[in-house]
Amino acid sequence: MDRVTALVAGAMGDVERTLFSALESRVPLINELVTDMIKSGGKRIRPLFHMLVASMCGYRGEDARTIGVILEYIHTASLLHDDVIDNAMQRRGKPSANAVYDNMIPVLAGDYLYTNAFDKIINLGEKKLCYVLTKAVSSMSEGEIFQMLKMGDLNITMDDYKYIIYGKTSALFTAACECGAILGGGGEESIKLMRDYGLNVGYAFQMRDDVLDYFGSKEVTGKMPGTDLEEKKSTLPVILLYAKLDNASKKAFSALFLSDMQTEEKLDKILRLMNSHNIHEESASVVKSYVDAAMENLNSFEDSEYRQALSLMTEQLNYRAF
Amino acid sequence: MDRVTALVAGAMGDVERTLFSALESRVPLINELVTDMIKSGGKRIRPLFHMLVASMCGYRGEDARTIGVILEYIHTASLLHDDVIDNAMQRRGKPSANAVYDNMIPVLAGDYLYTNAFDKIINLGEKKLCYVLTKAVSSMSEGEIFQMLKMGDLNITMDDYKYIIYGKTSALFTAACECGAILGGGGEESIKLMRDYGLNVGYAFQMRDDVLDYFGSKEVTGKMPGTDLEEKKSTLPVILLYAKLDNASKKAFSALFLSDMQTEEKLDKILRLMNSHNIHEESASVVKSYVDAAMENLNSFEDSEYRQALSLMTEQLNYRAF
Repeated sequence: MDRVTALVAGAMGDVERTLFSALESRVPLINELVTDMIKSGGKRIRPLFHMLVASMCGYRGEDARTIGVILEYIHTASLLHDDVIDNAMQRRGKPSANAVYDNMIPVLAGDYLYTNAFDKIINLGEKKLCYVLTKAVSSMSEGEIFQMLKMGDLNITMDDYKYIIYGKTSALFTAACECGAILGGGGEESIKLMRDYGLNVGYAFQMRDDVLDYFGSKEVTGKMPGTDLEEKKSTLPVILLYAKLDNASKKAFSALFLSDMQTEEKLDKILRLMNSHNIHEESASVVKSYVDAAMENLNSFEDSEYRQALSLMTEQLNYRAF
Repeated sequence: MDRVTALVAGAMGDVERTLFSALESRVPLINELVTDMIKSGGKRIRPLFHMLVASMCGYRGEDARTIGVILEYIHTASLLHDDVIDNAMQRRGKPSANAVYDNMIPVLAGDYLYTNAFDKIINLGEKKLCYVLTKAVSSMSEGEIFQMLKMGDLNITMDDYKYIIYGKTSALFTAACECGAILGGGGEESIKLMRDYGLNVGYAFQMRDDVLDYFGSKEVTGKMPGTDLEEKKSTLPVILLYAKLDNASKKAFSALFLSDMQTEEKLDKILRLMNSHNIHEESASVVKSYVDAAMENLNSFEDSEYRQALSLMTEQLNYRAF
């Protein structure tokens, strides 16, 4: 992983600095909250994918850094709004912004970050980039709303689920990779390949996340398992399990899933059920199918150290435990 | 007033239609909420100012309609987020969206409208327009946060207050009028004049609103008086009153203003105090000073039916009771 970041270390350092320096609100509290939020955000995975794709496609200019900053602003803004939406009390192991500041500040700080992102988007020369990034943001809010509507619905189809996680995660990964290819100046074909690549990476990334919400541990992920369960979200492991149950078991499971039983106890019961149906393995193989598809997208590109770095990161999605 | 709208009736009709037809979320609930919100929004005052300024400056093209839609989307999005922020339970005399749908939907519907607005902004040919509109949105979130920080602060200066209402209202009015002048293709001077005009109109508009929160009635405004008081916001009438009190009375007033007394009773007491200090008249004269400044901005332009319409609307700000 160190080898990967070393490849684009200079550019990533620029992104990191610009993330903070580009924000200059006249209101100190906003700066403070947004800075905290960005600092705790850590991995900069979207800028990293974007930068590596751009480099793989031959781009050597400055715009990739700006887009890196845009991607991270959009991502952080969406987390701020998600916290309000979910009334989530935990975010990355610390009290969430809305738990500390009520609803006011995170809604506005999110708006502030979105606006800063759009400000930068408007300044990008190439119109295609503007469209792709704006489209991603609108898919994100649509996906979140759809997720809310499907809460507690165990009859959710795989397509519904994919639509939700497209909005939640894949849309921005797709934009990150597509913008990289656009910067690279390749033709429609390579742009489409990188769009598909981002899509597959995004699906794998979010599905792995949803698997960890059942099979991960707080020590490693920093997130309490069972959050999706508490919010009655039907995610990959639940969908796979539910499909395996006969009608009577479906009924019993549904009562358990929707009950107000304490989360830890409920999680234990559901995990036992999942283990007896091999859901961990099956989930892993679904994730792997998207990783494999992403690898295939990558392999249409000429070999380079950038492609190798992307391969490494893509493979990692199978094992990611954080 | 009918004469005014008749002048740009065709264009305003287009705006009205586009407001709805341009939204096509795959999530029905979003369409429903956003459509309701826009339908109940009524007056389209920002598009109207924009359109009249553009016409006065000689513009006859299509972009004014698009900007009209953008202005109304931004305005509606900010109302949706304000409701969450204020936990306001009333908006335009009906239950607010967040009272009905909790926090989830209004946050996301607001994001969805902002995104749609930015989508249209990006498609505007002229970059100057993009900057002006984006800048307005970022001032709006900064102003709201600043307002929150100053809640309950009776030592707020007139400058603080103006900064708050700039974000709340003037920023978007300024952008509406400035964009009109940009479309008109006039030089820097006429653009600056219209920017100042929008600023003054916005101040007068919001100050009048703040006056009505003390001296208006629900039957006419559709809003319950005392909302600002309930949220302990220091607005124009309060600032003017507080400045007139001696130290002992300041102390007593502060205790009353910040107390948890039932709003109606508190409002009665404060209104009696305001009446004995002529605050209604004094507030009106402050509003009038901004109306006068706006009229002066207007008078630098050649006479036309559009200028006359704007004059009429500007004068109205002194008496607006809705």
